[in-house]
Amino acid sequence: MIYKKRTHTCGELNLQHLDQFVTLNGWVDSRRDLGGIIFIYIRDRYGKTQVVFNPQENKSLHELASALRSEFVISVTGIVKRRPPGQENNEITTGEIELIANELNIINKSETPPFQIEDNIDISEEIRLKYRYLDLRRQTLQRNLLTRHRLYQLTRKYFDENGFVEIETPILMKSTPEGARDYLVPSRVHPGKFYALPQSPQTYKQILMVAGFDRYFQIAKCFRDEDLRADRQPEFTQIDVEMSFVDEGDIFKLVEGLIVKMFEEIKGISIKTPFKILTYKDAIEKYGTDKPDLRFDLSIKYLNDILSNTEFKVFKDTIEKGEIVAGIVAPSCAHYSRSQIDNITEFVKKLGGGGLIWMKITEKGIDSPASKYISKDVLDSIVSRINAKVGDLILIVADEYKKVYNILGALRIEIANRQNLIDPNKYELLWVIDFPLLEYNPDESRYIAVHHPFTSPKFEDLELLDKNPEKVRARAYDLVLNGNEIAGGSIRIFNRELQNKMFSLLGISEAEAQKKFGFLLDSFKYGAPPHGGIAFGFDRIVMLLTGQKSIRDVIAFPKTTSAMSLMDDSPSEVDEEQLRELHIKIEK
Amino acid sequence: MIYKKRTHTCGELNLQHLDQFVTLNGWVDSRRDLGGIIFIYIRDRYGKTQVVFNPQENKSLHELASALRSEFVISVTGIVKRRPPGQENNEITTGEIELIANELNIINKSETPPFQIEDNIDISEEIRLKYRYLDLRRQTLQRNLLTRHRLYQLTRKYFDENGFVEIETPILMKSTPEGARDYLVPSRVHPGKFYALPQSPQTYKQILMVAGFDRYFQIAKCFRDEDLRADRQPEFTQIDVEMSFVDEGDIFKLVEGLIVKMFEEIKGISIKTPFKILTYKDAIEKYGTDKPDLRFDLSIKYLNDILSNTEFKVFKDTIEKGEIVAGIVAPSCAHYSRSQIDNITEFVKKLGGGGLIWMKITEKGIDSPASKYISKDVLDSIVSRINAKVGDLILIVADEYKKVYNILGALRIEIANRQNLIDPNKYELLWVIDFPLLEYNPDESRYIAVHHPFTSPKFEDLELLDKNPEKVRARAYDLVLNGNEIAGGSIRIFNRELQNKMFSLLGISEAEAQKKFGFLLDSFKYGAPPHGGIAFGFDRIVMLLTGQKSIRDVIAFPKTTSAMSLMDDSPSEVDEEQLRELHIKIEK
Repeated sequence: MIYKKRTHTCGELNLQHLDQFVTLNGWVDSRRDLGGIIFIYIRDRYGKTQVVFNPQENKSLHELASALRSEFVISVTGIVKRRPPGQENNEITTGEIELIANELNIINKSETPPFQIEDNIDISEEIRLKYRYLDLRRQTLQRNLLTRHRLYQLTRKYFDENGFVEIETPILMKSTPEGARDYLVPSRVHPGKFYALPQSPQTYKQILMVAGFDRYFQIAKCFRDEDLRADRQPEFTQIDVEMSFVDEGDIFKLVEGLIVKMFEEIKGISIKTPFKILTYKDAIEKYGTDKPDLRFDLSIKYLNDILSNTEFKVFKDTIEKGEIVAGIVAPSCAHYSRSQIDNITEFVKKLGGGGLIWMKITEKGIDSPASKYISKDVLDSIVSRINAKVGDLILIVADEYKKVYNILGALRIEIANRQNLIDPNKYELLWVIDFPLLEYNPDESRYIAVHHPFTSPKFEDLELLDKNPEKVRARAYDLVLNGNEIAGGSIRIFNRELQNKMFSLLGISEAEAQKKFGFLLDSFKYGAPPHGGIAFGFDRIVMLLTGQKSIRDVIAFPKTTSAMSLMDDSPSEVDEEQLRELHIKIEK
Repeated sequence: MIYKKRTHTCGELNLQHLDQFVTLNGWVDSRRDLGGIIFIYIRDRYGKTQVVFNPQENKSLHELASALRSEFVISVTGIVKRRPPGQENNEITTGEIELIANELNIINKSETPPFQIEDNIDISEEIRLKYRYLDLRRQTLQRNLLTRHRLYQLTRKYFDENGFVEIETPILMKSTPEGARDYLVPSRVHPGKFYALPQSPQTYKQILMVAGFDRYFQIAKCFRDEDLRADRQPEFTQIDVEMSFVDEGDIFKLVEGLIVKMFEEIKGISIKTPFKILTYKDAIEKYGTDKPDLRFDLSIKYLNDILSNTEFKVFKDTIEKGEIVAGIVAPSCAHYSRSQIDNITEFVKKLGGGGLIWMKITEKGIDSPASKYISKDVLDSIVSRINAKVGDLILIVADEYKKVYNILGALRIEIANRQNLIDPNKYELLWVIDFPLLEYNPDESRYIAVHHPFTSPKFEDLELLDKNPEKVRARAYDLVLNGNEIAGGSIRIFNRELQNKMFSLLGISEAEAQKKFGFLLDSFKYGAPPHGGIAFGFDRIVMLLTGQKSIRDVIAFPKTTSAMSLMDDSPSEVDEEQLRELHIKIEK
């Protein structure tokens, strides 16, 4: 195929190029025939340019052009001319000019694509994923991946400038499932043995600290063989960071600098530092979640103290059991009808709540099924605590600790959505700290690590480890953006005895710990420095910064929730011979 | 563990810091006791600093310091002082000062390491790999990984500045073994099906061109389950590049720019462009290899024409059979003894050669077992063609084409090594082009692709595809540095019919091609642009630029030639439950 190579891209030409002879290469984006003249837009990654084929000027060329269809790949040469007055297109960079063609090569033809190459098309995601090479021609996806490209570059530049060393950790590693399931890779050379794909480079980055690299980062592929939620992928990308001789403050400062850069360069927004810091306990008790969305307030108010003397049975019983009464305001919802209130009550019951006490604040006073059982003073205290005004609705839940805050946290977001309280152009970042170290898992009858088994307890809680492990707080931290956890990390254990103790609390025997993590434990014998780090969910950050709803729209070749690639139809069957060489058989 | 955090690194202090109070964190590198005073070097990634504990100044501190051993992690605070005259150490950046300690924390102790943390230690590679966290503390390995870090950054910066988009392609993909063996990953969700780890992102990067990304790059992890040669790893890193609307010249220019940058920034050497270009045929016939080392000449000389009338039986028979007689010069080797010549003959026989004809050029004339059978004229012509001088030795081989050039290529390097003709500080780069497209594989009774099945034939050879496929040249190119192939690529097929024809030449049925590569073939239906690309062996480039002999010394956590990680002991056995979930069984 001989064709003229481009002299310019399809997004480049403007009035400065008038009367120049140029060649463009690209795809036929669209074609119109007007009064015998053929107009096409030729498109590439950089933009599109109008090309004119006039039969009066070149009849055979016009005939050739009449064969052009959408998505044909062409090379077109011509002269750049100003568009006739009134025919400019201000939406594109080349909108003031057009190319009067005098040479055309059809480099490759195209069948009619299964869908139009344009944004906001109404087709199923299955079709989009099957024809990903066409889907990726759409402007939104091109822009998403270009933004992703810029985020890779600025992230690495930032860490490089801060003295971090980029180091690749292995993809074929040891299987140490703790938490999620590993993807396994059978070994051909060592029959019956397997590699695992990393769920994260956690142990390796700690080893790099023991090795003295001081500051490590990597944009790393990680893998989890889990049943997928809509916003998860079996393989995902994380910005992985570890530092020696640091405490939480050093990590926060580093990360805040990166976030500032990201917002500055991608969105032109300046983000204030330092970020807010909230303890896990405060996050739960004020917002009902460990990843609160702070773009709106509606914080949860504790009411037990106000209600200590009430005779209203629901509250009285709850308080006597040592449980919690708490509420939030639903601004301007006092007009809610019976059925709207029922609808919210239903919402609460679906989350496992027993019910909901509501109070409408009206001009005439408080309208509530509970008002006759509660004294005016107490009612006023509630209204004042919850900071409700006339026209507002108060929603109160009385239940055990976890349930109350979980329900009110969900209600808080529900109300904010209903009342349009969330400004989509606002970005609220905060640190959540002091997570519990351990959590009792009744199914497995053992404690599991809330962050991971390598996270250090807080010094001041160390003595609780034996007596009351559930009370021990971890030196763990999450970074939350608009209600999304975008990064999480911790200061690590760097002492062999404490690490062994942690494994034993998790019900991992010494032999098992040695078998799985022996290399890390052993490394702690030879001078391990204090260290800590963090990992960012890169796909999610790209999603939030491009304003997308799905991480699949910021990944070039994503998989479905059943972990399939619809384009190449993987996973797929393989030859018997391949399995024989790997010493495995399929178990039917 | 409470300790004072560092104010400076261990490589930072100098005369500008005199009399400042500072804190350093790091490892005890070494300790000396001199006249009751303890001197230690404290070390981190950035350097080392001498610390002095004087019992006269602080007795209890001196006592604490006497507990220090190599590789203890410490925090030490003190005042920066000029070293006494004559005690400076010019080999380190902090050599003019020392720290007079007045506070010491032992943050973590260390057992005696299994080997000293210093370069040029004499221990087995097995021990080094098992204790990789200690091995990585050695200066050479730290420096190698820091250079690797710089190469990552400059590579991405270069492609970014040239308009390339970094895009991640999947690690969990479809198994399409063609050439090497795939690593497989069983699917839990789809019983009996498997993912494969990519041998390269080849098909995906071509899909990205069909999707219109125009210029793609990625520093990508790739995997090959092969029996490992010493310089291969089961997982390796490549700089992966693809461009649309280009020919060979565009790729060469781009790559040469990157190579120039690498040498400039890493070695401070300026490399001349454009690089030499040699056809595959010329490379073989001049240097006996498709990756010639051009740091020395010793090119191979064809002798058939000179010998066409000789009666010397060996040459006569060879020429009559249509085979080749060729030779090279071994400079200053005329003094070789009988046993030295026998030794070279043995070398030739090991490579499958029948024998060797030698000629010593002495003051008295030509000394050779063949000289009595060959006329003086012809002898002179040989000497002149081979450009031999008095004192040189001529080595001639007569055999079939492949064998002659293979043997002489190996002899060429052998002689260069023996005669010290290779300047280790010289860097000779060249392109080798016009590789054959196909190669007949007698074991499989079919053609296989020399580069890969997606490589375009040269236009002018297209008509040979049916009649004489072995004669077809590919639009493939390799970049060679000092005898090492460091990159390889091609202009690709972008036409469905030609791609199908290529598969059929390779003995891949239409059904099989559709099953394995259907998505790529299908994508060619919808406007595939002309495109081409290249991939660099990143590990090897780092190895060559750091002057290392083994790629394992430029990879943080390499595997052995039997694909094991000795540090974490992977691959390893896994739980029955894990296998059950994956629907596989081990076949004993």
